[in-house]
Parts: sequence; structure tokens; C-alpha cells
Amino acid sequence: MSYPDDLRQQVDEYLQQLRFSDGSTTEGLEQAMLYSLLAGGKRIRPVLALATAAALGDEPASVMPLAAALEMVHSYSLIHDDLPAMDDDDLRRGRPSCHVAFGEDLAILAGDALYAEAFRLILAEQPGDPARLLAAAAELGAATGVNGMVGGQYLDVADAAAAGPEGLRELHSRKTGRLISASVECVCLLNGIEQGSLLAYRAFAAELGVLFQIVDDILDVTGSDEELGKPSGSDERQGKRTYVSEFGLERAKALAEDSHAQTRHALAVAAPRGAEELERITDFIAARES
Amino acid sequence: MSYPDDLRQQVDEYLQQLRFSDGSTTEGLEQAMLYSLLAGGKRIRPVLALATAAALGDEPASVMPLAAALEMVHSYSLIHDDLPAMDDDDLRRGRPSCHVAFGEDLAILAGDALYAEAFRLILAEQPGDPARLLAAAAELGAATGVNGMVGGQYLDVADAAAAGPEGLRELHSRKTGRLISASVECVCLLNGIEQGSLLAYRAFAAELGVLFQIVDDILDVTGSDEELGKPSGSDERQGKRTYVSEFGLERAKALAEDSHAQTRHALAVAAPRGAEELERITDFIAARES
Repeated sequence: MSYPDDLRQQVDEYLQQLRFSDGSTTEGLEQAMLYSLLAGGKRIRPVLALATAAALGDEPASVMPLAAALEMVHSYSLIHDDLPAMDDDDLRRGRPSCHVAFGEDLAILAGDALYAEAFRLILAEQPGDPARLLAAAAELGAATGVNGMVGGQYLDVADAAAAGPEGLRELHSRKTGRLISASVECVCLLNGIEQGSLLAYRAFAAELGVLFQIVDDILDVTGSDEELGKPSGSDERQGKRTYVSEFGLERAKALAEDSHAQTRHALAVAAPRGAEELERITDFIAARES
Repeated sequence: MSYPDDLRQQVDEYLQQLRFSDGSTTEGLEQAMLYSLLAGGKRIRPVLALATAAALGDEPASVMPLAAALEMVHSYSLIHDDLPAMDDDDLRRGRPSCHVAFGEDLAILAGDALYAEAFRLILAEQPGDPARLLAAAAELGAATGVNGMVGGQYLDVADAAAAGPEGLRELHSRKTGRLISASVECVCLLNGIEQGSLLAYRAFAAELGVLFQIVDDILDVTGSDEELGKPSGSDERQGKRTYVSEFGLERAKALAEDSHAQTRHALAVAAPRGAEELERITDFIAARES
């Protein structure tokens, strides 16, 4: 099945009309933010959010501010990860990284500002029941904090994850998986589905995050520079722990297949009547080549 | 009048028991966060929040998660401002800055994590009516985004503020003033006071932010290294635009006196029956020596 490009197009159109600066003096900051935010990509996190809304019987567009906020958070994390003091990556999606294009100071601030504006967008512009909206926004905070994305990046740069597959799984589940799963979970919280369904969607989302990362690690080895938009093999050169370094390429591919099956199974449990867009994204994540 | 040290002590006790990491692997990140968060200081923002609650007839302790979040945001902003790519300050509150003590990568992440955990703390642990809480948290997002704190830091590092007193005022009102005034405004929004009172408190808070900055600029020239916890005169060495560089020291002192009077007047309008703690903080901010 193919990626739900109709949802991606809705996301892109919404992102393109976003403006952050209320005056001319901070236009330079806004420019750096939009440079990274509008650099393209599959928009997996916001499309997941829209697809989850569809699976729950809601209009996908009804969660657009939340969806856009997820992409803004993702964009902020890439900007900070690419900084010289972090992964020191000069290329991102085939273009100079934010700090190469705008300088390190602006890149730090563009990331900080995208994160702030993401929260502002959810809290001030996402419609919904206030208590549910609070729960969704709190999940975004938790998913991006010490026990989520930033904690995962810490484990990575400080090489602080435990040894072995468990440590690798913890690192990835925090660094990448938690925001992927938040893209599903925040929409569930906003919708207010009952606890049993929430747990089932959460299990699907967590496994989807694992699948995403295994495939990401494989692509870093097998993908071409052009497809990835950055030099392939960068994980190995940086001595990063990946599913490939830990298990070898063939075993990693087998793990990806297992994870794909588990993710589809978890989705079937969460959405017994089917959830077409979520199924398509799951298959895309398993089969993607960049 | 003296600073409300009882409120500061409550804040310090609350901050000291905060923990962020749910496991041993991210303790190193938590350590860097707490190093900066617990470095002391007057805790002006959280104390302002508690004092505002008192002025509105609420128990100060009832807004403690919000108050702590304000200090965490302030702490994050100092960590990022001190980075080599930004102001490149090695000293903060008399100790090595976060990046000197923990490295640049951890300092970036410690700032990011403090910001995330600040939102999590408000959204998940601050009691209150959900709709009001949303409004308060949205104000924190706006106050720290492009049209608030981070935008102000951008105007500073990119030297992008307009020329003249207006530009200086815009720079400062964003960089420092907006978070100071949010410390009052968020509590008003959480309390749900009616629009007229909200506007009156907002006017007080905005002027208090201006007062804070004028005094800050004066202290950078007149304060001793020991009192400031960092080398005095750093604004001038970095060629920063300040009230002193713009107007000269004597005129800046006169402006501070004017602003003090205006702030007290605005407070009297907002709280016609008196607001002892807010009056004490206002006088302290006008008269402080560090």
C-alpha cells in the first residue's frame, strides 16, 4: 500500500501558511525556523496524528494544530542534533543544516523557538475539550523531556545507555520512538477514548516506533546518499550503536520483519474494524527506502 | 521593604525535591539540569507567581508547579544564553556555567530538557480549572517563543533590534520582560480574574519587566564581580545595547526611578486594597544590588 499522500499534502499546506513573528525585527529568526520546518520529508509524525484521528472517526483536519506541533518538535530536535557540539552534521535532507546556513547561534534559537511555538500552537489553537487537551499537551511534554526524546539524545551523545540489546532499545525508544508514539497517543488523549482502547493504541504506537528505528538503522547502511539526503554510513563513522552494529545487517532485517508483523498485529487489536491510513503508514515505514 | 524570603524559601524547598529522570541511565542529564536549576538566585519569577497568588487571595503554595516551571524556563534560558555560540559566558552565579562544567552537548540538552519538563510540570501537576490552565500554559509558550524570550535573544545576538530607545525597549521587553510579566499573568489566567483586572495586572507586570531590565543594565556597570556572580561590565565588553549605553548611567538611574514609580502606581491600580508581597518584590527589584 502506498503512503497516504493526501494527508501529507494537507500537512504541508498547513505548515506552509504558518508564521511566527509578529513584527519585522524577528523575521530572520522565523526564516531559520521555516528553512528547517519546510525542508520537506515524509511528515510521518503529523500524518500519523491525522491518520489516528481518521481511525477514531474524527475528521483528520480537526487535529491539525497538534499534528503541526509534532512536526515542529521533530524539526527542532533535528536542528539541535545536527549542531557541531552534538552530531555535527552539515547536511540534512540534501541541504546545508540549519547551523551551516544560519550560524550556530541562530540554529540553537530556531530550535528553541520551534519548540516554544509548538506548545503555543497546541495550547492556543487546537480545538477540543480542555481537560483532554491538557492531557495531550502533557504527553507531548513528557515525550520530549528527560524520559523521552531529549533523554534519548543524551544517552546517545554521552554513550550512557546500558550495554546490550536492552540498552539499545531504551536509547531508541526514547530518542525516536517516544515522539512517534506520542503522535498516536496525543490524538487518542484528545479524542478521549476509553482506557482499554488507549492501551491498545499505545502498544501499536510503541511497536511502530521500534519498527521505524530498526528500518532507520538499516537504511543508514543500505541507502544511497541521494535517497537519504545525507551521507549514508554516518552512524558507523560516528561509532553509534544501531540495530545493525548490534546484530549485523541480516539479523536486523529479520528483526524489522518481525517488528512489522507485530506492529500490524497490534494495530489490528487496537482498531479491529480496520484503520486504512494507519495500516498504510505502517507498511510504508517498514518498506521505505529513505 | 525586604524581599519576601518566606516565599523564596518555599520555592527553594520545592525546587530541591524535584527529580526528572525515571531511571539511572539519564541521571547524568538530570545532574546537569539540577546544577543550573539549584545554583541559587533570588527566584524572582516563581516568587512573583506566588506573590500574585497571594494578591488574588489564593494560597501561594497552590501555584507552586507553575512557579517552579517559570524558574526552570529561566534556568534553561541562562544555560543556552551562556553557550559559546551565544554570549560565551564561562561564569554564572559565581560558578562555572553549565557548558563549562558538563560540556556543550550536555548544556544544550539540559536546557532543552528543563524546558520540556517545565511544560510537563505545569500541564500534568498544576491543579486548576483545565480551561484556565490551558490559557496559563499557552501564555508561557507565547512568552518564551518568537515574540517573547527567544525572539529577544535573537534580537540581541543578531543585533536585529531597531535603532534608538524603541528598539532597545523591544529587545528587553522580549528577552527579559516577557517572562517576568508572564510570572504575574499566568497566575492571573489560572485564577480566572475578570478582564479588567487582568489588564491592570498585565500593565503592572509589563512595567515591572522594564524596571527589572533597567536596573540589570545599571548593575552590570556599578555592581562588583562578587555581587553579580559574573564579571561586571560584560555588556559593554560585548558591545551590547543597554539602557546605560543608550542613555548614560545618570539618565538610566533616573529612568529606573521613573519606572519604579510607574510600577508601584500600576500595582496600586491592579490591587487597590494592597498587595504586600508584590509591593516588596517591586521595591526589591528597584533597589537590588545583584
